[in-house]
Parts: sequence; structure tokens; C-alpha cells
Amino acid sequence: MTSILEKYIEYLPLAGAEDVDGIGEGNTPLVRSSSIGGKSRLYLKMEQLNPTGSFKDRFAALETELMKRQGIRAFIATSSGNTGAALAAYAARRGFRCLLFVNEFTPASKLDQMLVYGAEVFKVKDFGVSNELSAPIFERLQQLADEGSTRLVISAYKYSPDGMEGVKTIAYEIVEQFGGVPDHIFVPVGGGGLLSGIWRGFKDLKARDIVEKMPKINAVQPELNDTVVTAVNENAETAREVFTTTSISGLAVQVDIDASLAVRSVSDSGGRGFLVSDEMVLDTQSSLARKEGVFVEPAGAVSTAGYLRALETGYLREDESAVCILTGHGLKTVLSGPATPARPVKFIQIGDIGIGLLAEH
Amino acid sequence: MTSILEKYIEYLPLAGAEDVDGIGEGNTPLVRSSSIGGKSRLYLKMEQLNPTGSFKDRFAALETELMKRQGIRAFIATSSGNTGAALAAYAARRGFRCLLFVNEFTPASKLDQMLVYGAEVFKVKDFGVSNELSAPIFERLQQLADEGSTRLVISAYKYSPDGMEGVKTIAYEIVEQFGGVPDHIFVPVGGGGLLSGIWRGFKDLKARDIVEKMPKINAVQPELNDTVVTAVNENAETAREVFTTTSISGLAVQVDIDASLAVRSVSDSGGRGFLVSDEMVLDTQSSLARKEGVFVEPAGAVSTAGYLRALETGYLREDESAVCILTGHGLKTVLSGPATPARPVKFIQIGDIGIGLLAEH
Repeated sequence: MTSILEKYIEYLPLAGAEDVDGIGEGNTPLVRSSSIGGKSRLYLKMEQLNPTGSFKDRFAALETELMKRQGIRAFIATSSGNTGAALAAYAARRGFRCLLFVNEFTPASKLDQMLVYGAEVFKVKDFGVSNELSAPIFERLQQLADEGSTRLVISAYKYSPDGMEGVKTIAYEIVEQFGGVPDHIFVPVGGGGLLSGIWRGFKDLKARDIVEKMPKINAVQPELNDTVVTAVNENAETAREVFTTTSISGLAVQVDIDASLAVRSVSDSGGRGFLVSDEMVLDTQSSLARKEGVFVEPAGAVSTAGYLRALETGYLREDESAVCILTGHGLKTVLSGPATPARPVKFIQIGDIGIGLLAEH
Repeated sequence: MTSILEKYIEYLPLAGAEDVDGIGEGNTPLVRSSSIGGKSRLYLKMEQLNPTGSFKDRFAALETELMKRQGIRAFIATSSGNTGAALAAYAARRGFRCLLFVNEFTPASKLDQMLVYGAEVFKVKDFGVSNELSAPIFERLQQLADEGSTRLVISAYKYSPDGMEGVKTIAYEIVEQFGGVPDHIFVPVGGGGLLSGIWRGFKDLKARDIVEKMPKINAVQPELNDTVVTAVNENAETAREVFTTTSISGLAVQVDIDASLAVRSVSDSGGRGFLVSDEMVLDTQSSLARKEGVFVEPAGAVSTAGYLRALETGYLREDESAVCILTGHGLKTVLSGPATPARPVKFIQIGDIGIGLLAEH
């Protein structure tokens, strides 16, 4: 069994399906923190270890498996990076044609990854800059998909609800690995689909009496993309519109795609929202690498930054357990991002290698 | 249980140890090929999905766990890339100081990865160029380690035999995932430690009557680093000395570290050796991405290239089962390697998006 789609088939829109195919998505480790968070009970859900390096594989695996069963063999999709890489990989696996429309801010390393799997990539001017400029682009892409008798794939419940159900499997795995329901889950929010999917997963388990309670699902966002957090904390029903300026790739989503759904999911679970600065995110990214040996891209460190914030503010007690969802692998940003540290590589000759090296610190 | 060291503790030099710590190493998927190899029964062991992106995590996790128990909190190591990244991560996790000595050919992306985890990296002139030039460097490093009451760590049975036992866990997982012993295993050979570790793992299972037979363990090397393959096929007892010119990072190891051990391991298992050109390796890397959705670095595609060669020559029958060991993640080489394909990203405006795009092929 190499696909979690098969393992959790009864919870997914695949009832009765046979020969479900995967490339090893899901089943990611849940690792206890060694030093971050002090004596608190912090666990890291290592979603960056999915085949293409992000949790989006859970969505892409299911979305393309469903297409296969519907006879669709080409599709159009939008992405800020990780969704595109995931869809490109599963499209390759299933022999589909994959056309990806990205914005001008997608990092070169992520574009490269999409291209490696054979996707056709189009960078669209002004895409994602504002709701006004993006709306006609979404419309045109939808029209294009309709004309081509294919599908516009967007990793959000609003557009691709069946495929998004793959995200629920994160919740099922946490319960198995943790041995129950942790007190808190911290989830980074860009569009809002990841958080909503995890919430739905726990709801499934509760509805079947497999678990007795919901965890508090807490939303974490860069303060420069605060569509959900303030809305949650003000008990609003819907997400806010903001002008996004965060530098954290993948979390700059000012359009309300699944944001209002995420607001309601957090509220229903009794969780709340936390804002973190871009600088805190990069500091936490570095701490995860240098203290835990866990290398994630900046967006992947957002949940842990929020966790530390929650600990600081006293919202979280040290005896409570929490799971932070890490999302994208740090290798996706090597050579292209702020992860590169200041300490240089020293070039030496054999004669220069002295015991001084060991005493240096 | 987040470490395979705990799961397989009875097979490892950790007997009776408690609180074995890990960051999710091992437990990598075994994925059946969808199209490569035609109707043959090819399975891919996805070692690139280890936490730092290569199988070296199995070694680094155990080596550093053993150091922790011996009170060692700083070490020196050599690496062509992946070992350094793995050791740097586990050193960070355990609060150790990690000094890495690399040669002049280590790709920038791999150096970056080591630095991200906080390792101190030294690039040594002439290291790895030839046995003659490398020998005094190894000597000096050993001396340095002795003077500093620490250890020189090299991912090879010759130098770090206890830590290398971590590699055996690949064999245990294959038997569990495959549901028995496959007919063939194809393993890339650089130094020879990976192949030797896998062989030892199967020997363990055979000695305990958990399996009835050994798989044929086949060595695959770039023809420009043929230390083991020709030796095996000529029934020699020891590896050959060669002048290495392969461009495949990680597999240019002309020094006989574990190479003679690998020769004997292959022979004992009844396997043989296969040579592949650097070009075949890069073609196979591309096929894995474009046909299977599996992105590995060039060295990670060597076993599959060898498999295809074995199929071509008739050595392998289509009804036989084979597992290819994929080693390092393709993301380790994004932006720095030949994996980047020729097809460019197209920059378009909304008005340019027409149905022509879909009809283009």
C-alpha cells in the first residue's frame, strides 16, 4: 500500500475504487521537538517529506486519481509554487498533460521543479497582485478549461472540493501517531484550504466516535497577510480583505478563496488566530534547522512561529500538547532564499588544517 | 515511534538503549513503477524522501545516537555532499558541533544545505582527486580527531562500522513492504557502503530464518568510476583502482573504502555488476521525473539505469521482481544541475491566453 488514498479510502470520494495509485504521498513522520518550545509538548508534522516536498501531494494525488477515473487526461491549474510541483508530478505519473499558470513571484527553484516533471508553465502578468486584476484571469482560465472540456484545478475547497478531501488525511495520521487528539494544532493559512481540510478530517473522526473531542485548531498568518486571524479573534463570520505585502512565498493570498471557510473552522474548533512577522518566520525557520535538524521553507516555519507566539502570550500552557504543521521542504528554496546563512565555506589546504579549528569556539 | 532505530533496535548496536531519538528517518515508500521497464515488476525504494533528502540519514541518525551515548559532542567528518547534510542535521538536533571537510566538487546547493543546519564547512584543496593526494588529508583529519578526543566520521564500514549498520534497515523495510524477498535489488555504488549495508541487512534476516533466500544484489556504477562492477563480473575478490572522471556527484569514489566489501557482497548474493554512461544516468533521471513523477538527483537514478541495462541484456526476465534503490532527492540539485529541462517558462498577458495553448500539442 503506497498511497494513503487507499488506506483512508472510506473517508474519501473514492468509495469502491480499486487500483488506487500513488508515489508515496502522506504517512509523514510526527516528530517531538527536542529543544524548541522548552519543556512544552510540541510535535512537528513533517509534511515537507511528501514526495514533491509539500503537503500539496495529498491534494494532487487525489485530484488526479479522480480525473483518471473520469477520463480527463489534460488539465489547467494555478499555483504559487508547491501546488504546481505536486500536480506536475502526479500528472507525469498518470500520463496527463499539465498546464500551469503561475504569477510573477513564484521562486525560480519551484518553477524548475514544475518543469522537471514535464509540465508546461505560463507566467501571467499581474496574476495575484490584487482581486481586481486576478478576477478576469481566473475567469479566462475557467473559460479555457470549459472550451477544452477539461478542468481548472485550484487547490482550494471553493474550486476543487473533491481533491481537497485528500488533505483530511493529515488529521487521521495525527490521531494514529499521537495516539489520540492533541490539545492544539497550529496551521499556517494562505488560502485557507489546509486548515479547513484538517478541521474536516477531525470532524469525520468525531462523527464516527473514533475521537471524543476536537483539537483547538489555531490559524497562523504573516501579519502582512491577515485575512483570517483578526477575523477569527473578532468573532467575525467571514475573512477580511487585505492588501498583501508578506514576503513569505505561498502565504500571500489576499483573495478570499477558502479564507472564510477557515475562519469558521477555527471558531468551530474553539481555536484562535496568531499573527507573526516575516522576520519571526525566518528566525523560526533557522531555529528549526539549527536546533531540531528540520529544514523547511519559510512558509513551513509559520506554524511553529505561531506556536511560540501562543506560548509567549500565555494562551498555551506548557502541559498542553500541540502539533505544528510543517508544509514545504527547505530544499525548495536552497540557493534562492533567505535560508542561506551568513557563515561562509572556508577554502583550505592540507597544511592549514590545524587543531585551532576545533578550539575555535 | 519516529525513529527506525527504535523499530529495528534488536538488529543494531543499540541493544537495551532507551529514548532513541530521530527526526523521521527511514520508513520510505516502496512504489511500483507505472511505465518504466514496461511490463516488468519494478519497484522504487524512495530513499530520497528521508528528512535531509538521502539515505545517509539512516547512517547519520545511528552514528550520532551512538556518539550521544558515548558523551561525544563534537566531530569531524568528510563528505561529497549528502553525508555532510545528514550529519549536519542530526548534529543540530543533538546539540553537537559538526566540522565538515568537503572537496572542491561538492555542489553549491549541498554546501548550502550543510550550512543551514549550522555545520562548519571546510573545502579542502585536492581532496578526493587521487588516492595519493587524499591519503595525507585523511591522515591529518584522523590525527586532528585524536588530538581533539573526538571522532573522524566517514560514511563507510571501514571507518564508522557501527553507524553504517543503520543502512541495514533498508533491507528490513523492503521485506516488509514487498511482502518477502524480491528477486533482484539494484544498488548504486560510490564507496560501496550502501550496497554492503543492504547485503548485511538481508543476511541478518536469513540468519534468523525470517527470509528463506537472499535477493540477487546487483551493483550499478557509472562506467567512469568502475571500481566494483568489472571486478565482480571477472570474479575478482577485491575492487579495482581507477582514475575517476564521472560527473555524477556522490559516485566519484576511486579510493577503495568499502569497494572490496561491496565486491564480495554482490558475489555472495549471486548478483552481478552493470555499468552505465553518465548520459544514460541523466536520461533515466529525466524519465523518472517525466514518467513516474519521481524526482531524484543524478546519482539517485543510477540504479534504475542499471536495471534498464539488465533488462536490455536479457539478464533480467520480465517476470522477475526488482527493487531499485533511489538515493538523493532531485531538489538537492535544482538550479545547479542538468535536471533543468530545456522547455522555458512562457511569460504571457491575460489577452494572450487562448485556446491555442491547449491545442499546441
